[in-house]
Amino acid sequence: MFPRNTWYVAATPDEVADKPLGRTICNERLVFYRGAGGQVVALEDFCPHRGAPLSLGRVCEGELICGYHGLKMGCDGKTVSMPGQRVRGFPAIRSFPVVERCGFIWVWPGEAGLADPAKIHPLPWAENPAWAYGGGLYHIQCEYRLMIDNLMDLTHETYVHATSIGQPEIDETPCATRTEGDEVITSRFMNGILPPPFWQMALRSNGLPDDQPVDRWQICHFSPPSHVMIEVGVALAGKGGYDAPPEFKASSIVVDFITPESDSSHWYFWGMARNFKPEDQALTAQLREGQGKVFSEDQQILEQQQANLLRWPERKLLMLNIDAGGVQSRRVLDRVIAAERAPMQPGGAGIPVTPPTA
Amino acid sequence: MFPRNTWYVAATPDEVADKPLGRTICNERLVFYRGAGGQVVALEDFCPHRGAPLSLGRVCEGELICGYHGLKMGCDGKTVSMPGQRVRGFPAIRSFPVVERCGFIWVWPGEAGLADPAKIHPLPWAENPAWAYGGGLYHIQCEYRLMIDNLMDLTHETYVHATSIGQPEIDETPCATRTEGDEVITSRFMNGILPPPFWQMALRSNGLPDDQPVDRWQICHFSPPSHVMIEVGVALAGKGGYDAPPEFKASSIVVDFITPESDSSHWYFWGMARNFKPEDQALTAQLREGQGKVFSEDQQILEQQQANLLRWPERKLLMLNIDAGGVQSRRVLDRVIAAERAPMQPGGAGIPVTPPTA
Amino acid sequence: MFPRNTWYVAATPDEVADKPLGRTICNERLVFYRGAGGQVVALEDFCPHRGAPLSLGRVCEGELICGYHGLKMGCDGKTVSMPGQRVRGFPAIRSFPVVERCGFIWVWPGEAGLADPAKIHPLPWAENPAWAYGGGLYHIQCEYRLMIDNLMDLTHETYVHATSIGQPEIDETPCATRTEGDEVITSRFMNGILPPPFWQMALRSNGLPDDQPVDRWQICHFSPPSHVMIEVGVALAGKGGYDAPPEFKASSIVVDFITPESDSSHWYFWGMARNFKPEDQALTAQLREGQGKVFSEDQQILEQQQANLLRWPERKLLMLNIDAGGVQSRRVLDRVIAAERAPMQPGGAGIPVTPPTA
Repeated sequence: MFPRNTWYVAATPDEVADKPLGRTICNERLVFYRGAGGQVVALEDFCPHRGAPLSLGRVCEGELICGYHGLKMGCDGKTVSMPGQRVRGFPAIRSFPVVERCGFIWVWPGEAGLADPAKIHPLPWAENPAWAYGGGLYHIQCEYRLMIDNLMDLTHETYVHATSIGQPEIDETPCATRTEGDEVITSRFMNGILPPPFWQMALRSNGLPDDQPVDRWQICHFSPPSHVMIEVGVALAGKGGYDAPPEFKASSIVVDFITPESDSSHWYFWGMARNFKPEDQALTAQLREGQGKVFSEDQQILEQQQANLLRWPERKLLMLNIDAGGVQSRRVLDRVIAAERAPMQPGGAGIPVTPPTA
Repeated sequence: MFPRNTWYVAATPDEVADKPLGRTICNERLVFYRGAGGQVVALEDFCPHRGAPLSLGRVCEGELICGYHGLKMGCDGKTVSMPGQRVRGFPAIRSFPVVERCGFIWVWPGEAGLADPAKIHPLPWAENPAWAYGGGLYHIQCEYRLMIDNLMDLTHETYVHATSIGQPEIDETPCATRTEGDEVITSRFMNGILPPPFWQMALRSNGLPDDQPVDRWQICHFSPPSHVMIEVGVALAGKGGYDAPPEFKASSIVVDFITPESDSSHWYFWGMARNFKPEDQALTAQLREGQGKVFSEDQQILEQQQANLLRWPERKLLMLNIDAGGVQSRRVLDRVIAAERAPMQPGGAGIPVTPPTA
Repeated sequence: MFPRNTWYVAATPDEVADKPLGRTICNERLVFYRGAGGQVVALEDFCPHRGAPLSLGRVCEGELICGYHGLKMGCDGKTVSMPGQRVRGFPAIRSFPVVERCGFIWVWPGEAGLADPAKIHPLPWAENPAWAYGGGLYHIQCEYRLMIDNLMDLTHETYVHATSIGQPEIDETPCATRTEGDEVITSRFMNGILPPPFWQMALRSNGLPDDQPVDRWQICHFSPPSHVMIEVGVALAGKGGYDAPPEFKASSIVVDFITPESDSSHWYFWGMARNFKPEDQALTAQLREGQGKVFSEDQQILEQQQANLLRWPERKLLMLNIDAGGVQSRRVLDRVIAAERAPMQPGGAGIPVTPPTA
């Protein structure tokens, strides 16, 4: 139950730096590597000769060489050569559209003919030198939508992350949720509160006082298939909050790419983009360590939640106001998946003939 | 294949001392915790909001707080409150009858309306200061009845526990087995033998000589659903054996509660109650360590026995005289389970209309 | 999909030296031990009393004693005795033909009446004091035929074992494959090449120069059910190669017994027999360590190849000239298995009435 004709984050560039990477995405076993000229390639992880995984091979001058019998595979899935063999009749393996952009490797697991790099989620901060990014990757044994629910409802911070980023004000302040096209936005504004330690540090970095009341915001943006970008920040109280001029505020973006591996597991790419002290690499490392620790607190509860849902499949979950972000995101996903599966109208690309049954 | 309308040992008090305990019993995923006033509560381990396991939460002033979004659960399975929510329409989760008694926490996994604390297995030694108790818990990957078989036939001691408590006299002396109502008793009396080291120590503790012949006994009592109490002891030879006056003997009770987790695994609560040196806590610890080591010797053989039975399901096991304790216990269990499943006669509580097909 | 009426290597003598060995072969759970007089016995690993695995017991004066209740099992699968019991009516368990020969324990998992020790694969080097042998055992999670493919096509050495025994000449020299009756032979001759380090050492051991061109050969012999013997060697160039007189060459035999455990796993007995410095035990140990390291390099690729084949069962593998050894070996196996399953003609042992559908 995930869209296939879409771009997912599959890996980070360091993962394919010096050897092939085997990774299953949307139930497809893939191998990623850097082909000629350094561009990233994604193929089925299956050597057409004897079925060995190509990801156990090595890359030589931009060609992937199977680690079993030396078959040389081209980036189009066609065999280039093999010692002592004529390879013209070898069956091709499937290649997948892949793009390296904004510090991530993106793959399109569905129909290749529909893959348009212009549809890759824009990440303006990634191309702006005033911003810095640090992040990591977790493998989580639950379906990807439970992670979307988690990130589109930050009241859980008060409980799951009670000792780090949680604070009572989050729980006490209502959130507002709306859907705009395929995007779902859920936001919470806490005005006139004291800044917690993280934001004290950020205020000081921006040359602002750290001991005065601030207006704080959390704005979660879901975009299909499973990206959640969370704008977080503070402004000196009374200066306009989220809309205050830059000289009165500090902010960052919590970045989440949630890539299905199978029907009950996913790859969770998490990170933070910030526009203060972008050149401070020690700060980047420190933030990554802290964020990695916080996000690891969700893993146990999500995996046991998945086990509970499998055990009681007939139980309906509640959909409260705090859950609106996840609920509306799932509605968008249902619509996207139904559109993918529906037959196309002649000339009407992407518009299903029958209404989707979400 | 286990009775459900009955009391099982679920935990020991120390397991719910400071945080909730998640434990599956009779295929029910349960959470145990201490509610208001300290009384133990057992509920389904499922938060009605989003299905998170409540056992990952915490207890605050006797209320269980879900670790995901802060839902406060009452001891009746009804939601008490949740930040920013009206909870009146929230679905209740199932609560289970639970009683703390005699140093154990007992749960009734079946129909709550039938649960009567008076039916909890009496443990007179547990309320008698002349007795001391020490024990432990093992998780065993075999169905609970294989452990009943094991404990109702102590000839296995000669082989499984050859280096500790086994001795040839056990194997050489026949046992006698009888069923009295729902109780099965299998007993073995070895007269005029030399006491093994454990009983030498116990004799000395009681001010008796440790180098003279004794009459030794082992009397195993099975009671449904799966309790096995083994009276063990020695008396100076010729003083009446089991019926000798207290000043001539030393004895203890091996205590076994065998609680099904699933159809092929169980929780094994093992221990020893003794009426000598009850105040000697170092002795309690020493006995527990020794007993734990002995009982761990059964685990491998029981788990591989289970694997063999699953592999050859069509094979009938032998039922020898030494197996009579297990065989008769299984007959009692079959009768209890059939009675549970049979429709009730009007006015005839517990009496099945049709005879049970054991 | 493996022959059953055939001899497989089941164990090495050291594995049954002092206690019973439980091992599954061709989906049969077996126990091996030394009976009276030291001869090896193979029985079902199932005590007829309560189903405990006999392999957890012990051997006493040539009889296997169950570790649970002391049942004494005879080498014919009939119970000999049990404390306090009459055992005449106990059901027998199955016993399997087993022979200890040439440093290996061989078992016949199929119909016992057909087992003829004369059919055990001859190992002339094992009975010749001019030869020495060293080897080991790996448990591999792939079906046994993938290992046959591996060993009947040594071009993989260039890639899998690039840092040890692989060299480009293997890949560059074509091989020739033929089937003779049930034997498949694939051979490769590399003439006028420089000897790699292993063969330099072997030449010196034989009093030959190690810095001159040699003719090198690899001749792989497959015999059903799954034995692969690889003759490897070098002769000083121009002296006749494989057929050169003994004073001009050095050689050894790579020994592989590939015994199915289940449909997707096997026991891999690997080793090397050599006819130089046979008395040098330190050399034997050194060769075993090196060979064990090399053969461990195949494990990951074979196990992931198995996973890929299970994932894409509909895909046909290529059958190139280099694969001819494996392809022809599988044809022999198909014929052997079909003959096993076919009804016998009256008086025509082993000849199927209908042609096998390989």
